[in-house]
Parts: sequence; structure tokens; C-alpha cells
Amino acid sequence: MIRVAILGYGNIGRAAEEAVKAAPDMELAGVFHHDDCLSCIGADVVLVCTPTREVQKFATVLAARGICTVDSFDIHRQIASLRSALDAVCAANRSVSIISAGWDPGSDSMVRALLMALAPKGLTYTNFGPGRSMGHTVAAKAVKGVRNALSMTIPLGTGIHRRMVYVELEDGADFKTVEAAILADDYFAHDETHVIAVESVEALNNVAHGVNLVRDGVSGCTHNQRFEFNMTINNPALTGQVMVSCARAAVRLKERGVYGAKTMIELAPVDLLPGTVEENVRALV
Amino acid sequence: MIRVAILGYGNIGRAAEEAVKAAPDMELAGVFHHDDCLSCIGADVVLVCTPTREVQKFATVLAARGICTVDSFDIHRQIASLRSALDAVCAANRSVSIISAGWDPGSDSMVRALLMALAPKGLTYTNFGPGRSMGHTVAAKAVKGVRNALSMTIPLGTGIHRRMVYVELEDGADFKTVEAAILADDYFAHDETHVIAVESVEALNNVAHGVNLVRDGVSGCTHNQRFEFNMTINNPALTGQVMVSCARAAVRLKERGVYGAKTMIELAPVDLLPGTVEENVRALV
Repeated sequence: MIRVAILGYGNIGRAAEEAVKAAPDMELAGVFHHDDCLSCIGADVVLVCTPTREVQKFATVLAARGICTVDSFDIHRQIASLRSALDAVCAANRSVSIISAGWDPGSDSMVRALLMALAPKGLTYTNFGPGRSMGHTVAAKAVKGVRNALSMTIPLGTGIHRRMVYVELEDGADFKTVEAAILADDYFAHDETHVIAVESVEALNNVAHGVNLVRDGVSGCTHNQRFEFNMTINNPALTGQVMVSCARAAVRLKERGVYGAKTMIELAPVDLLPGTVEENVRALV
Repeated sequence: MIRVAILGYGNIGRAAEEAVKAAPDMELAGVFHHDDCLSCIGADVVLVCTPTREVQKFATVLAARGICTVDSFDIHRQIASLRSALDAVCAANRSVSIISAGWDPGSDSMVRALLMALAPKGLTYTNFGPGRSMGHTVAAKAVKGVRNALSMTIPLGTGIHRRMVYVELEDGADFKTVEAAILADDYFAHDETHVIAVESVEALNNVAHGVNLVRDGVSGCTHNQRFEFNMTINNPALTGQVMVSCARAAVRLKERGVYGAKTMIELAPVDLLPGTVEENVRALV
């Protein structure tokens, strides 16, 4: 049995706990608060379910002690530098860190890489939603006069998105002023954005999300090869599950002596699954 | 540059040649007929584009000489035994064989494995078509009174398929007799099958094909996670492209000293792509 610890117990930590308990080849070594990071020592692999900006700190501490980690770090433009920094720590301490192991970045990244291999020339569009954007929600909440907010991402195709921003106003706040501030914010200024006042943002709460990932391209010299990947999912449940599946891959890579920090495009799908390679070949190939 | 030889020059061999020529990191070492198998020695990797039943013979000869191979062996129930037999030859001779590297088995297998990792409980259905089924076409052609035939696979959902069989009759053949023989054949007896007489089967020739692969399942303990992969493609062009992308993976695994026979679920998507891991992480994760 793979002994899995969970560090951080928000939405993702809770979902990861459920996925560990449902896994036939894993046991829960414990759920720990950030302050208690070193209590994770003794686990084979730690799921770092902290806020994304704290991932590097905790993953580094654990990797330096030879413990495998998995995180769902999701700031796309910083992934390569996180990978590079953690890779050195892992290599020096015989550990494996699987980084950015969520659904995007994560499983969508694997699909994008596969589709590039199937049609090397062409265009890929990743369309998100309908679903809540964390970054845009935080930006809307920060506007003066907003008590609570929810920014929904609505896919319009070809990677273009509409922002539907639901705001709960503080007493005495002026809607037109709040609306203007949101529309002027750099998070919203470049997209079609609609601001709507509501009585209760909590009443709209829904962790559903979706993806429509499209690639039209060329295989060899043959055009008009069309591929599409769609999903509608519970966001934290899928993130937690992806992290747990990647925990398995981390332990296997370590067993093979393949140390380092890896993104999901560097993992073989079979290493995400319980059972032997032979069993999975018979069932899935 | 990776030196790629092609063994066999049918539809797949021709498409593979185009994909090699389009690859930025490959050069064509030659295209050879089956009789001339050993002329492939000197290539880094050989694409075995022979009929599927001859794949094992040629791949074994080449792997035994330490040469990497890629094939698109497509008899699902024999894949595990081909893998096992070739694996021993590769391990003993420091070579790598990527087997069943087409779109199904092949890239669809990678998608099925990934979806199992995202939602470990649930049902996956692979729906094929519309497109020509080689096996069913051969079965229809073998019926007495049939000069030429084409069996199209039409997806009806949940892995159920309709067979549309277009037959060109020999002079004097009786349609009703031919129809009855086809409907009684074990290839057709279990599916909804329609037999249609046409003047010219050649006039219907079209190498388009499609897939609709669906998984509805459970991540952790959260139900209603829905995933779908669709494609509409030129069949030999995609098969040739997949083989060429896998040729890259074979050479990389050999460089790392990871010898053996592998199916595509055992490959990391990034190994299918030109460029460095770092470049692909920046572009695709």
C-alpha cells in the first residue's frame, strides 16, 4: 500500500482525501495543516494542497528530505521555473515531485501534447467553462464596495471567453461605480464582461466546471484532421483525483530511480493507474 | 537527426513516409519491401508497415539486431502476447519496440487510460466511425457472388455499431442469396446490418474515419464526471503520423537505457514530440 499524506485541508485537500480512500492501493498517512509540514515525513508521498503560491516552499522542504510530492500549482507562466527549481532538489535527494497535476494545467496538458503528436501542424484552442474562475473572482472581490463576488467563465470558442461577474454590494455601495471599476480592471478589460448585482453570491455557489479543447491540424501532409476533448466536472473532485493518480506515478518513478520534478506530459498514462502494466494493457489498449 | 526506415509500402507506409518528411528532427533512411528487411539495418528505428499478421516476424528480426521498431499491430486480443514476446527480444538486445501504435489501439488507448485515472469508477464506450472496417470488408468480400465490397461502421452509441455493407455483385449473382450469406456470417450476425447492391464499390472509396470515446464516472466519491474525446480523420494519415511520433519515443527510451516492448499507454506524451522537454512544458502545460 502507498502511504499518502495530505498537506492542507481546503476544497482540494478534502477531495484528495476522498480519492485516497477510494484508491485500492493507497492508505491515508494523515491530513496535516501547513504549520505541521514535517509531520508528513513517514509518508511515501505528500499531496501539497496548500494555496498555489505556497506550493514551492512546502514541496521544496519535503523533496529535500527525499519525500515525493504532488501539487496542482496552476500559474501557467511560472510552471517551467517551478519545475526547474524543484528538479534540482529532487535530483539531489532522490525524490520525485509531480507538479501542476490538476486538470489545467494537468490532464488537459496531456491531451494537448497528445494532439500535437497526432497532428503536428495546426491550431489548438482550450475553451474553459462554464465555471468559476478563481483569479477573476478574487479580482472582483477586491473592488471597493463589493462584499462578495463570483466570476463565471463562459466559453465563446477559439479560446475567447465571456466573464459573467455576480456581485453582492456592501451597504450604500453604488452599482454603477462598482461596475465601472470591474470593467476597468486588467483582469476584465480585455474580455466581454457583464456585471450583475445579486442579493446573495453564496446562493450561486457551484463547483462545476468544463473544458472544450479543440485541435484542427495536419498529420503528415494530410489536412482536416479534427480532434475534440470535452468534459463537464466537479472542479475540486477532479483536481483531488488527478493528484491522487499522480501520487502513484511519483512513487513508481522513485522506485525506478527516475528522480526529478515532472509535469504530467512527462508521465505515461499507465503509471497513473492501479494494477500491473500487463493488466492495464489487456483492459485499455 | 533520427534516421527512420519504412518496411512495407501500402497505405500506411506511404502515409508514414509523408510524416517522416514533415518531421523537423527526422530523415528517411529508406523505404524497403518485406523481402528486404535486413536493408533496414543502419536506421535508428524502423516503421513496420507490413500487414498486421506479419508484424511480429519482422519486428523480432529487427529487435534481435538491436534496432528499434514501431508497428500498428491492431488485433486487440493478441496485443498482450505480442508485447510479452517482443519484450524479451528487446531486453536481450538493448532495443525498444513500440507496438500497436495507431489510433485504436494507440492514441485512443492513451485517452482511455487517462480517463480511467481521472474517474476510476464508471463506464467507457468507444464508438467507431463513420468509417470503413477492414475486417468486415474482408469478410464481405469473401462471400460467394461478391466481386467487391465495403463495410462501413456506423456508431449508434454505447459501443453499439450498425454495419452498412455495399456490395458489387459478380455477373449472374443473386442479391438475396448474397445478402443472406452476409447476414449469417459471424462478423455481421450480432450487429444491425444492411446490405446494399451498388454498381461500383470503388466509387465509394473514402479513407475517412471517426471516434467518439465517452467516459462517465466517479472522481473520488463525486459522481457525474463526464468526458468525451471525438475525432474525424483520414485513417492512414493518422496511423502513419502516430507511428512516426512513436519512433521518436522509441529512440529516446533506448537512449535512456529503457529497453523493451511498450504500448502507447506506457509512453509519456512529451516523448512523442520534437523539441526539448523544457520547450514543450512552456508551450503545452
